[in-house]
Amino acid sequence: MRDVSVVGIGQTKVKEHWNKSLRELATEAILAAMKDGHVENVDALYIGNMLSGELTGQENLGALIADEAGLRGIEAMKVEAACGSGGAAIRAGYLAVAAGAYDVVIVAGAEKLTESSNCYTTASLAMAADADYENVHGISFVALNAMLMRRYMYEYDLMPEDFAMFSMNAHANAANNPYAMFQSPITLEQYNRARNVSDPISVMDSSPVGDGAAVLILMPTTSLNGNSARAIKIAASAVATDSLSLHARRDPLWLSAVELSARKAYEQAGVTPHDIDLFEVHDAFSIMSVMSLEAAGFASRGRGAYLARENEITPKGRLPLSTMGGLKARGHPVGATGVYQAVEAVTQLRGEAGKNQVIDARVAMTQSLGGVAANAITHIFTN
Amino acid sequence: MRDVSVVGIGQTKVKEHWNKSLRELATEAILAAMKDGHVENVDALYIGNMLSGELTGQENLGALIADEAGLRGIEAMKVEAACGSGGAAIRAGYLAVAAGAYDVVIVAGAEKLTESSNCYTTASLAMAADADYENVHGISFVALNAMLMRRYMYEYDLMPEDFAMFSMNAHANAANNPYAMFQSPITLEQYNRARNVSDPISVMDSSPVGDGAAVLILMPTTSLNGNSARAIKIAASAVATDSLSLHARRDPLWLSAVELSARKAYEQAGVTPHDIDLFEVHDAFSIMSVMSLEAAGFASRGRGAYLARENEITPKGRLPLSTMGGLKARGHPVGATGVYQAVEAVTQLRGEAGKNQVIDARVAMTQSLGGVAANAITHIFTN
Repeated sequence: MRDVSVVGIGQTKVKEHWNKSLRELATEAILAAMKDGHVENVDALYIGNMLSGELTGQENLGALIADEAGLRGIEAMKVEAACGSGGAAIRAGYLAVAAGAYDVVIVAGAEKLTESSNCYTTASLAMAADADYENVHGISFVALNAMLMRRYMYEYDLMPEDFAMFSMNAHANAANNPYAMFQSPITLEQYNRARNVSDPISVMDSSPVGDGAAVLILMPTTSLNGNSARAIKIAASAVATDSLSLHARRDPLWLSAVELSARKAYEQAGVTPHDIDLFEVHDAFSIMSVMSLEAAGFASRGRGAYLARENEITPKGRLPLSTMGGLKARGHPVGATGVYQAVEAVTQLRGEAGKNQVIDARVAMTQSLGGVAANAITHIFTN
Repeated sequence: MRDVSVVGIGQTKVKEHWNKSLRELATEAILAAMKDGHVENVDALYIGNMLSGELTGQENLGALIADEAGLRGIEAMKVEAACGSGGAAIRAGYLAVAAGAYDVVIVAGAEKLTESSNCYTTASLAMAADADYENVHGISFVALNAMLMRRYMYEYDLMPEDFAMFSMNAHANAANNPYAMFQSPITLEQYNRARNVSDPISVMDSSPVGDGAAVLILMPTTSLNGNSARAIKIAASAVATDSLSLHARRDPLWLSAVELSARKAYEQAGVTPHDIDLFEVHDAFSIMSVMSLEAAGFASRGRGAYLARENEITPKGRLPLSTMGGLKARGHPVGATGVYQAVEAVTQLRGEAGKNQVIDARVAMTQSLGGVAANAITHIFTN
């Protein structure tokens, strides 16, 4: 397999884009990435998206977006792994370049969640869980996470406040990210007083629904030519799965897909959790951050929340998380999120993260989850 | 890139599967393919599907189906390119094996179209076309094809009857395929008297809505070991795109994505159209067969229909088409269809096609189209 590097990145701001369609958002991010990477000719496009059919009545996004971006004719397809679709699209693009099939590949993630009514968006997001055994009972996706958080708090004797630092860190970081949906820090008091969504998950534990698109341009590391100056290497690309439904897991409090894909990624990159300088974690809900930290080997079982309490997750801490705002505050346009994470990791490794710059960042990890970590797609980037 | 072979195939019958869910259909085909290929351990699953979200309320099919088939943990994701999703999934699986990432990969195509009301299925299928510029006017997918057929007949001075042989051949072949939806031949009189769907397309020009799943198991050609006896090589895998909307094409009567992907495939396989022993064409509507034959180089412009009139498309003809019934009579569970085509091509190259066997078949081509050939995914198989 050929080594693969990221030579260009692009993104739109995450927000409720009432005046831009899905195709416009995706095209804006693609053109930005092509400009950033000084790339004019492209061989293929893999686009991560979860709900374009349900919410905007549009499937066949690959051909549509390729054409819209002026690339009519190239190979193009959509890749879907629920909220992990962006990570899965990176994986597909990575394989195409690693195989030697193509030399310039666009990986896009794009999602428009606000084209529909809020309740229909919520119902559609639940399609990430098991339709026949979970959704049929009317449970929403946040409610599944709330059950996990409740059980976790019971098992490890925690309070909601123990999760606060994850959200506070995310919001503090987003304040310095012009592409983030929420650009204001939050206080512990705001966290504690936040309205309930699905007990014990409050709005301050939840990532917001938003629209956006993010893009990577991938090339083989050996043929970067004029693109090498700011190129960032993909040192690992790994995917693992778990059951969709929580009841089918032997241990609902352990994210085995996260563990498996992180292990594979560490092995590929030849690193350990200690080598990771920053981790773009899938903080769709704060319980997911905590459980991901444990399964990925950054904290022992039941101790994930303590990492945050000990203040180690800020950009100056031992393991900076959600360095540009994370899903919580940058926003979570589901199928685009995995690519946003990668764009942010590349920004850090280029040393272009401004006030949120992680000093001497050399190794960055991103993890994109589909469903309640039914899919886990882990990438490790190095400069 | 490593050479890739098909070592196992599986399929369910295409029909209205009222008593089987999407996950059951997919799993049935996967287990059949694993048995056929004597495969017990699998590294990854790529599943082609278009409408699981819209029609069955289920996204995240990759993880779901992997788990259901007893393969929890492996890499899995869904690939979508509208009606060409099956072909796109083969492409994704091919790249994973060609890259050297995996040694045993399952490619599945699965679709359940009859879980919903007919009118909702029709509306969902229209998501293969342009939501903002075509569907918004209320046009259905068959109506788009009807406009093409009408224009084609006008330009080349043809009658509907000139298209009859494509459907008659498909139905005759399906009669010998136990997995086909329609197993009865049709006469010219039946074709001529068929009820109108969208003038000039009749039910006898249209592939039927159905449920089904089909599966390939791919391995690197160099490490087949005990699987080599009936292995069939993938000699080419190529994807190209066109605009989704018909009005945006310079020449609506020319399928440029078909031309482009077929050309790339011929080049990869080192063959010409003359070398193709059978062609599983995307005969969603008979006009698509005719235009595909021209764009793929089997007939000159405006002469595609004559191939059928000259009786050259039967299993004993010069270019056998739809040898196991095609989309028209085997049935068209959209996201599964591209994989059915490949299963049938492999069946032919193994010499296991029974009464429909193409004598001395050595080179088989399949083409999976998304939208009105907005995506064209071409594969060439050799034994």
